[in-house]
Amino acid sequence: MSSLPPLPFDAVLFDIGGTLVAEAAPGTPVDDLRVTYLGGSPRTLAALRRAGVRVGAVTDTATMTEADVRGLLAVDGVTDLIEELVTSSDLGVAKPAPDGIVEVLGRLGVTDPTRALFVGDRDVDEQAALAAGCAFARVDGSAPLASTVIDAVVRAGGSAAAAAAALVGPVDDDARRAADERQLNLTKPPGSLGRLEELAGQLAAITGQVPPPVPTDVALGVFAGDHGVVAAGVTPWPQEVTAQMIANVAAGGAAVSVLARQFGVRLSVVDVGVATKYPTGAGILDEHVADGTANLAEGPAMTEAEARAALDVGARRAVALVSEGATMLATGDMGIGNTTPSAALTALATGAEAAEVTGRGTGVDDPTLARKVTVIATAVERARAAGHTDGVDALVEVGGLEHAAIAGFVLGGAACGVPVVVDGVIASSALLVANAIEPAVLPYVIAGHRSVEPGSTAALRHLGLQPVVDLDLRLGEGTGAVLAVPVVQAAARLLAEMATFDQAGVSEADD
Amino acid sequence: MSSLPPLPFDAVLFDIGGTLVAEAAPGTPVDDLRVTYLGGSPRTLAALRRAGVRVGAVTDTATMTEADVRGLLAVDGVTDLIEELVTSSDLGVAKPAPDGIVEVLGRLGVTDPTRALFVGDRDVDEQAALAAGCAFARVDGSAPLASTVIDAVVRAGGSAAAAAAALVGPVDDDARRAADERQLNLTKPPGSLGRLEELAGQLAAITGQVPPPVPTDVALGVFAGDHGVVAAGVTPWPQEVTAQMIANVAAGGAAVSVLARQFGVRLSVVDVGVATKYPTGAGILDEHVADGTANLAEGPAMTEAEARAALDVGARRAVALVSEGATMLATGDMGIGNTTPSAALTALATGAEAAEVTGRGTGVDDPTLARKVTVIATAVERARAAGHTDGVDALVEVGGLEHAAIAGFVLGGAACGVPVVVDGVIASSALLVANAIEPAVLPYVIAGHRSVEPGSTAALRHLGLQPVVDLDLRLGEGTGAVLAVPVVQAAARLLAEMATFDQAGVSEADD
Repeated sequence: MSSLPPLPFDAVLFDIGGTLVAEAAPGTPVDDLRVTYLGGSPRTLAALRRAGVRVGAVTDTATMTEADVRGLLAVDGVTDLIEELVTSSDLGVAKPAPDGIVEVLGRLGVTDPTRALFVGDRDVDEQAALAAGCAFARVDGSAPLASTVIDAVVRAGGSAAAAAAALVGPVDDDARRAADERQLNLTKPPGSLGRLEELAGQLAAITGQVPPPVPTDVALGVFAGDHGVVAAGVTPWPQEVTAQMIANVAAGGAAVSVLARQFGVRLSVVDVGVATKYPTGAGILDEHVADGTANLAEGPAMTEAEARAALDVGARRAVALVSEGATMLATGDMGIGNTTPSAALTALATGAEAAEVTGRGTGVDDPTLARKVTVIATAVERARAAGHTDGVDALVEVGGLEHAAIAGFVLGGAACGVPVVVDGVIASSALLVANAIEPAVLPYVIAGHRSVEPGSTAALRHLGLQPVVDLDLRLGEGTGAVLAVPVVQAAARLLAEMATFDQAGVSEADD
Repeated sequence: MSSLPPLPFDAVLFDIGGTLVAEAAPGTPVDDLRVTYLGGSPRTLAALRRAGVRVGAVTDTATMTEADVRGLLAVDGVTDLIEELVTSSDLGVAKPAPDGIVEVLGRLGVTDPTRALFVGDRDVDEQAALAAGCAFARVDGSAPLASTVIDAVVRAGGSAAAAAAALVGPVDDDARRAADERQLNLTKPPGSLGRLEELAGQLAAITGQVPPPVPTDVALGVFAGDHGVVAAGVTPWPQEVTAQMIANVAAGGAAVSVLARQFGVRLSVVDVGVATKYPTGAGILDEHVADGTANLAEGPAMTEAEARAALDVGARRAVALVSEGATMLATGDMGIGNTTPSAALTALATGAEAAEVTGRGTGVDDPTLARKVTVIATAVERARAAGHTDGVDALVEVGGLEHAAIAGFVLGGAACGVPVVVDGVIASSALLVANAIEPAVLPYVIAGHRSVEPGSTAALRHLGLQPVVDLDLRLGEGTGAVLAVPVVQAAARLLAEMATFDQAGVSEADD
């Protein structure tokens, strides 16, 4: 079975102050120290442990022992996530000496220091890592800790998507419960905001904050690829429209460009596999993996290397956008013929028949629809016979390069701890792939809309997701995801800004 | 049968330049004159004629005969809407002399000049009207002509709602078709924007412009009233919550206040029938008609005079908001117990049984729901036996004062030619009343959302309306209407700002 490549690191070690937790002011008495975790570190440590990565910590402190530090890190159970922890007080030697790192690696049984990453915030951390023979990564201000680790994996030649999958941590169910409690005190009948209350609870669980901050910095990734299956006559649109349309998206003339302007959404257009030329300087990010896929009607759509590379493109884009400040991501796509791989991916993951999940896409006539169903059924049968029904396997057999990138984008966003709003049928089929790679992504996902395409409904039902908007769209590009953005923002604002019964002096209902 | 009171005018006469059409620059040769209608005048003239009001025009011109002027007004068939037209050239005497007005009234057979309104833009128009013994109204810059006429009716002691009903004109189906045509040239598959394309077509039809301007100045009217039926135990909430909540809405702490801030919607809170006290200076408009309704479980909910007064409150508010610049209106409500009259109004208008259209409102338990259904069934039976199933009759039997005001608000908005986004189950039952009074309102109405309440779905189905959002809300206040606002704005922006295939150099599909 194909899968993502292994990580280049068996262990990740962390500095503590300035890396995992905010630095205390110098001279703060131990009893007054309070822990504020940085960059979602509890989530990231939990993810690493779940992924089987060894986790340690090395900290310099004038007076504190391992037990002291572990006492402070007992908040939210973080100490239990750190397998081995040494302090300079315990050891009698501080960084830049490598002794602490060497000691922890020894206790963890990691014999090859090049298989370890040390994460810190200062020059002495870097010097110690260098001296110990480890890789080093420096935390970056307000960026998530996960993004720092993913970037380090990429620098070490590893896969961004694999790192992202390993770094998807748990959401905060306590925060979700606290959000639900807060709803009950707001001036409205319990539950009367319907789906907006669910969304607010989900944002609380994702961010660990109650009320969750309003996700105002939203970044949309529009991933574009071409499809060899257009040779099978599944669409009336010529293939060059993919290249023409991404230039249009970048120039501001496409539907998603208009919506992104209206709702203040930042837009990146990414060529992950466009087969024809578009003008250079058009504002399109060149992450070209291949000139489109092979014809899935006749054999596998792509190689495993291509699938992995495209997954990495998406994961890297998500990490970059969150590092630049995005607090919510949204997915988009462009690719003539791409409802065909979407239907095939959806059939494979859900077990549905091709005819149940195949729609008219951008508007095909009856003979084309019949041809499309036959093509999809044949490819699905081939993939099922090979046991290639999900994840990277499914991408290789019947996927698209933009589907792979969107799956990686979802993994990257979830790893960085931000909500990811997915668009319609293309994105939901890519989400099935991401979910097969790492099911922990799902609590981070918001289904933007229900496409007219039957595969969209099948995929969302399979994943247990309810779409936010339902406007009979079948355009793709990310239009449905962007239209959901103001609703998601409203959910957060309502929880943050509504008055409570007490504040407003409003009487409550009789029980 | 109860109905709205008759208008105080049998005839409305208009000046032409500066009133019905933009003034030409002095000295423009006749052959170069082009007609630009002002304030939606063709719509308003058509509405007056449909309502049986006599229509004439009196214009001063140095050289043009009636035939010359009628030739210019042939555009859009406006000349056919003007029954009698005289020019100062025909007559040999200009305003401020009353001769032109007297001549037209004579030809129309209007013998009592106090039953006529003259509408103009200049002092000489007012002097002529005064000399002829008519009422006078001066057009107001960019405000709709309809608002000028409605204000004049109110000054003459007439009903704003009756005037609004008489002034609801036809929408522009040519503009709708032109919008649909334009959609076909935009860079997307035909029809792929689904409901957004329908909304864009509706906005084009309402505004008569292609693309329609984006409705950015949106005003929400939240109408509040109390309900004697709370004595029948249909809700667990104490009646004083109506007053407390409108203070909360005005203070910015209610759900609709938060959403209005987010989406830049201006909010007016109107007391049309609140039974308990709220703080003065709370920012609530006092349009108090009565201290709530009587108990509809025991007899009529209100008098005909109360119903008419509350309808007028809503119509006047709509006219005021549009005159102040609103280009779209949205409806909201507040009233403990108001899902009970809503269900009763909906049962009466749709013919449904009480149980089919009665929901849990803000969340009643099973015994309360059963009591509520019985109360509604009894009231509906009484109203049906009396033949009081719709319009003002239905309001008198089973309505609420805020339902009446919302119905008037819809009539006022439609008369002024702006789209009106209606909220959930309260508003949709009020819309049934407005529709019974004047079915021409419907093309101006956008159903904001589908409430969880079953009456909402029944009312929308009866009216053939599709809601914009469907988020399981059951809060009222206008929350569902405000959430639809960004979607409606998106529909207009897309039609205005998307590139065409030619502009973007994108190939079209093969046929």
